[in-house]
Amino acid sequence: MNIRFYNARILTMEENAPIFEGEVWVGDEKIIYVGDGLNMDEFYRRRNITCMIWDEEIDCERNLLMPGFKNAHTHSGMTLLRSFADDLPLHEWLNKQVFPIEAKMSPEDIYHLTKLAVLEYLTSGITSIFDMYLTPESVARACSDTGMRCVLTGAVNNFSQSVEAMEKWYGELNGKAPLISFLPGFHAEYTCSKELIQDIASMAKRLKAPVYVHLAETEEEVAGCVERYGLTPGMFLDSLGMFEYGGGAYHCVYLTEEEIDLFQKKNIHVITNPGSNTKLASGIAPINDFLKAGLNIAIGTDGPASNNCLDMFREMFLVTGLAKLREKDASAVDAMEVLKMATVNGAKAMHLENADILAQDKLADIIMIDLCQPNMQPINNIAKNIVYSASKQNVKMTMIHGRILYRNGEFYLKDEALSIYEKANEIINRLR
Amino acid sequence: MNIRFYNARILTMEENAPIFEGEVWVGDEKIIYVGDGLNMDEFYRRRNITCMIWDEEIDCERNLLMPGFKNAHTHSGMTLLRSFADDLPLHEWLNKQVFPIEAKMSPEDIYHLTKLAVLEYLTSGITSIFDMYLTPESVARACSDTGMRCVLTGAVNNFSQSVEAMEKWYGELNGKAPLISFLPGFHAEYTCSKELIQDIASMAKRLKAPVYVHLAETEEEVAGCVERYGLTPGMFLDSLGMFEYGGGAYHCVYLTEEEIDLFQKKNIHVITNPGSNTKLASGIAPINDFLKAGLNIAIGTDGPASNNCLDMFREMFLVTGLAKLREKDASAVDAMEVLKMATVNGAKAMHLENADILAQDKLADIIMIDLCQPNMQPINNIAKNIVYSASKQNVKMTMIHGRILYRNGEFYLKDEALSIYEKANEIINRLR
Repeated sequence: MNIRFYNARILTMEENAPIFEGEVWVGDEKIIYVGDGLNMDEFYRRRNITCMIWDEEIDCERNLLMPGFKNAHTHSGMTLLRSFADDLPLHEWLNKQVFPIEAKMSPEDIYHLTKLAVLEYLTSGITSIFDMYLTPESVARACSDTGMRCVLTGAVNNFSQSVEAMEKWYGELNGKAPLISFLPGFHAEYTCSKELIQDIASMAKRLKAPVYVHLAETEEEVAGCVERYGLTPGMFLDSLGMFEYGGGAYHCVYLTEEEIDLFQKKNIHVITNPGSNTKLASGIAPINDFLKAGLNIAIGTDGPASNNCLDMFREMFLVTGLAKLREKDASAVDAMEVLKMATVNGAKAMHLENADILAQDKLADIIMIDLCQPNMQPINNIAKNIVYSASKQNVKMTMIHGRILYRNGEFYLKDEALSIYEKANEIINRLR
Repeated sequence: MNIRFYNARILTMEENAPIFEGEVWVGDEKIIYVGDGLNMDEFYRRRNITCMIWDEEIDCERNLLMPGFKNAHTHSGMTLLRSFADDLPLHEWLNKQVFPIEAKMSPEDIYHLTKLAVLEYLTSGITSIFDMYLTPESVARACSDTGMRCVLTGAVNNFSQSVEAMEKWYGELNGKAPLISFLPGFHAEYTCSKELIQDIASMAKRLKAPVYVHLAETEEEVAGCVERYGLTPGMFLDSLGMFEYGGGAYHCVYLTEEEIDLFQKKNIHVITNPGSNTKLASGIAPINDFLKAGLNIAIGTDGPASNNCLDMFREMFLVTGLAKLREKDASAVDAMEVLKMATVNGAKAMHLENADILAQDKLADIIMIDLCQPNMQPINNIAKNIVYSASKQNVKMTMIHGRILYRNGEFYLKDEALSIYEKANEIINRLR
């Protein structure tokens, strides 16, 4: 499909590029042109064509095109437990509510529940997710079937998944389906034995692959690791050679200075989850310190049981808002930095550099932000306003891999949204 | 107009009432019936009619009807400065950016800019606002013209408005227009001389009226008051007899125990503004302590220059989320308490008890929450999900005073939304 977007404002998210007015052209899954749309002779000459034949030409009515958001930490199958048990102490929530229900979920259940999450991602302009859950294969299938770009990671721990399974997924889920890739990962230091962690580190070295893990989410987690091994979680994992090929850490609320240095040296990405850290009372991550250290910071919603919505706008506001509170400084963490985190940095953390910005030859993961809404007016500073004022109702279109999956409040999926909702309700009623 | 809502889920917000399925009937500006819609003989008999003649019958498709949100602290005219100057230290933001532009705004500008705010309120299910700004008369006119219920308050300080003007507004803006009322108020201790504050207290006693004021928003404000008068702001104002007939305080981030006692005794409402307190790095209000003390807590967005959106969903999440962070307890401030704050408690703080819940003879300020959106599925706990997961895209309808002003993304106003946007852009381009 060749699709022409014209009469658009364009935020490419290239470093320091201003918003300009022009066109974005999409050919199949890629962006083939971004610019003012004038003097296209050179473009046609290079392609040896005299004109483009469009399947669709979309008047953007001066709304904004920008790269889709990268939701860099998700547990999509947990839509089941959205608002199932809130306002409980963390331990009770996890052990008495979350785990018992999760134990009953089948791969097929997770397939359907992931589809429900995908619908919500689309409403929030999310064009790729970095998903860790029990059954990566059914998550991959749900994403392929719905058109969502998905990087999967392992959730290996003492009780589920295995290093062998992960190595198999690494082989089978990479390079096969256009929307799907897999990077090694495990649940957390506190849910894995030292031996298991060592095995994962060996595998990562063998595959020359980065590793992703929940890390320093709570004070208790860090204290437990120090008690067990005399090291904070990041230093402990590094002592076992975990990050020889980089990787990433989710949460990072209680990262030490020493660990920040480690993250710099070993090219470990920070993936912050402020909504979840807030709702579970975990704490506020030192984003300002990470920025000063030059770490690559991406943003994830975490799962819908702990958030409970899958909304990058809420996360973006919280990243800067909570940093301002933590630093007692209204100028901490500029909104433009946050927009980078939600797009370019996320792509980097997820090894999706081919989908990071709007530029020729990049994958066509594009969203349109509706500026004709009262919360975007007057037009003072569009980019900052996205972080401070936009919400899901401003997402006018979500395109992934050159396909429009959501537009003007409607989904373009094989399945009806209503049947996905019904299925989710059927599952919770069965497992409750 | 007689409007029948049927096939609805209904959250009346009466104390401890569960969500049930049924109907809400509206006759002109009032709710005339809330119930299951069965066995209506008694209803007809009492009214001496045999049936209702409906102007419109609305199938709610099992979506949720509930009372509209009360936005208990706004500066609507500040839409002009939305995303005009962000990520700046508080002092620089206020003195170099906000004040110079505000000084140039005319009453007519404020009229148009308030209309822009009203559009956004409608998208967020806000059915009444408590507005403090430079020119209450033009705000009142904008609200009357757009159909927004508005309680105005004074912004008296050393530089603008006066006690005389406020007494005039108190007489002229109460009891005249059905949507408009006025309660005395002044800007803050730190912008008013002691003499001026004494005059305001005398006026309040004379009128037997409550008084509303910005209070304990920042540590600096409290320290300044203690330095000037040897008392924290709440105690100082009380020492001058300010709260003999109650009142309310916006922000209350740094309220002392002594002041919490005072608020209890004098029936002073807390109006919390977590979005603004976050973005301006002011701090986190001790909501949990207020709850324990039994204070009436309402919620406001504050103005769009410091928030930047006018979104009660963001505020509701922040009220409980920030309390959880502050208390380091994921069970702090239950979501149901927050829903009460955003509806019933707001109505109480604004003296709008006739618009607080869905019940017969209450004013018809009703919203419909769209549950057929992925962020509301599966249906585990609708009320908690509104606080934790809902956002503007879930507002399917906003009715004020029996009039539907917003439905399915469209505004039903005399003016076109686009012309309101144009006007706002024209004003900022003129005053910049």
